[in-house]
Amino acid sequence: MKLPEFKDIENAHARIRSYVHRTPVLSSLAINSLAGAELYFKCENFQKVGAFKFRGATNAVLLMNKEELQHGVATHSSGNHAAALALAARNLGVPAYIVMPENAPEVKIKAVRSYGGKITFCKPDLKARETGLKDVIERTGAGFIHPYDNFNVISGQGTAAKELLEDMSAPDIIMAPVGGGGLMSGTSVAAGGMNKNIRIIGAEPENADDAFRSFQKGYLIPSVNPSTVADGLLTSLSLLTFEIIKTNVNDIYTASEEFIIKAMRMIWERMKIVVEPSSAVPLAVILQHKEQFKGKRIGIILSGGNVELDQLPKLLSLSKGGSQT
Amino acid sequence: MKLPEFKDIENAHARIRSYVHRTPVLSSLAINSLAGAELYFKCENFQKVGAFKFRGATNAVLLMNKEELQHGVATHSSGNHAAALALAARNLGVPAYIVMPENAPEVKIKAVRSYGGKITFCKPDLKARETGLKDVIERTGAGFIHPYDNFNVISGQGTAAKELLEDMSAPDIIMAPVGGGGLMSGTSVAAGGMNKNIRIIGAEPENADDAFRSFQKGYLIPSVNPSTVADGLLTSLSLLTFEIIKTNVNDIYTASEEFIIKAMRMIWERMKIVVEPSSAVPLAVILQHKEQFKGKRIGIILSGGNVELDQLPKLLSLSKGGSQT
Repeated sequence: MKLPEFKDIENAHARIRSYVHRTPVLSSLAINSLAGAELYFKCENFQKVGAFKFRGATNAVLLMNKEELQHGVATHSSGNHAAALALAARNLGVPAYIVMPENAPEVKIKAVRSYGGKITFCKPDLKARETGLKDVIERTGAGFIHPYDNFNVISGQGTAAKELLEDMSAPDIIMAPVGGGGLMSGTSVAAGGMNKNIRIIGAEPENADDAFRSFQKGYLIPSVNPSTVADGLLTSLSLLTFEIIKTNVNDIYTASEEFIIKAMRMIWERMKIVVEPSSAVPLAVILQHKEQFKGKRIGIILSGGNVELDQLPKLLSLSKGGSQT
Repeated sequence: MKLPEFKDIENAHARIRSYVHRTPVLSSLAINSLAGAELYFKCENFQKVGAFKFRGATNAVLLMNKEELQHGVATHSSGNHAAALALAARNLGVPAYIVMPENAPEVKIKAVRSYGGKITFCKPDLKARETGLKDVIERTGAGFIHPYDNFNVISGQGTAAKELLEDMSAPDIIMAPVGGGGLMSGTSVAAGGMNKNIRIIGAEPENADDAFRSFQKGYLIPSVNPSTVADGLLTSLSLLTFEIIKTNVNDIYTASEEFIIKAMRMIWERMKIVVEPSSAVPLAVILQHKEQFKGKRIGIILSGGNVELDQLPKLLSLSKGGSQT
């Protein structure tokens, strides 16, 4: 299995640079004080389509050859990757075919449409999604871009960590949330390639801890019906992302739902920025395992900011006390 | 009545520069497209204590002489000015005495305490606040810093507009929300001093439109029991702020509650930043009076980001459709 190397991330960065935002790195003295560590947040919530996913999708689309590309691209997703792929394709003037479950939230459907994505609805189960995708590809000849089990997507995601490490002086630790593992994989290759002394740590919800368990055991253990407020992290690692993570990552920590919500609230209240629950998982890990991170300089990828505001009471309902304590 | 001039704002800026954040100016292509204008947002939600108020409080405290200062400072406020004054005083190592109504929200009390403010509680009416403040001042000898009816506070607030105009090329219009008028006054002096061609426009909730009505009539008409989601704008102009606004401001527009909430949601969803409802009033005015602002380049002061997240459902409840439409 061919794994991405640092030069793949450098090449991806040169390739996508004119399409993506170079997002800011922010710090909060108040959060540093509460966390007992020095934290630098890479704000991919400010990325186009509101999430890091636009980096990988753009890199993957730009690497298709002209002949492939003229038939467009396709994926099944109800999340940020769908919107990211739609915009990446539109930027090159080719169609993006998105297979979405018929019960996908209205706001996600609107987002994909607003970027010109062509939606095919399917029943809300994995089999229907796969069949739906297969049909679309046969009909259109579009190229399939998997949300994370894709070499070029992973290389694109790694550009966020590359920018973070360019914009801060050398940290002790770099952290990213782990869902399907695309961001974590890219982050680990970027960090390992830039500085051998950085500890590379993944952050995962306790309630969707397939990467944690796989990492401990040394073989892939997919999640079964995971349930977490961090809805961007429900997916399980692929063989490719697991291989990269096993090779590069130093450790994976988990955080409880309570700490994820507390961390999300803390970022909203103290930094005045909107992040989705998945983005808050690394800070949640730091707050929950304070001793291990005490006094460290830590770079953190905030993965995205796509939250349905009307769902906020539900998202915050587990944490009554807020982050003031 | 002596009115602040541009040199007072320049002096304030030099004076407070090392204490305040130079906040970023952000734009959103999505919001520009929805508004039909080119908007530049000065993000005072990222200011220390989460609001522009820290500028004016810091300037006022720094301008007190040593003898006055040793007795500390005092104010009555349940809002951002209280926290701002507490932090400004702590930075100089002097006490801040804050008179707050006994029913003030827990989160505001905690904020003032976290900056070292000494709170005296009073009954929740204006007379009790004024009596409470008089008692505190007699007891401590502290200097009273009014939230907006104060020359030095106004000069400090004007530094936000000065920075905004330094960081963008000349706009057609500059806008700020109007409550007691401190920010609007300072903004108008800064903009008038820097560029004679900028139209200076105030934005006010329809439901708290004392500045709009006073401006139309030419004499001061205080609000009576105003009620608006933009709870930072409930106060009425003072003689001083009205005089400055009458002299410098070109126009005042109002926005309905519906548009204020729609604008706030749009800023959260599209820009991924947390702003309080008061901050959204200028954008609300632009959305509600589209023809008047069409195609213009507009600088806008986002006044602050202190929102109680648990109140969000209530804050959003008037706008069912969201900002997608």
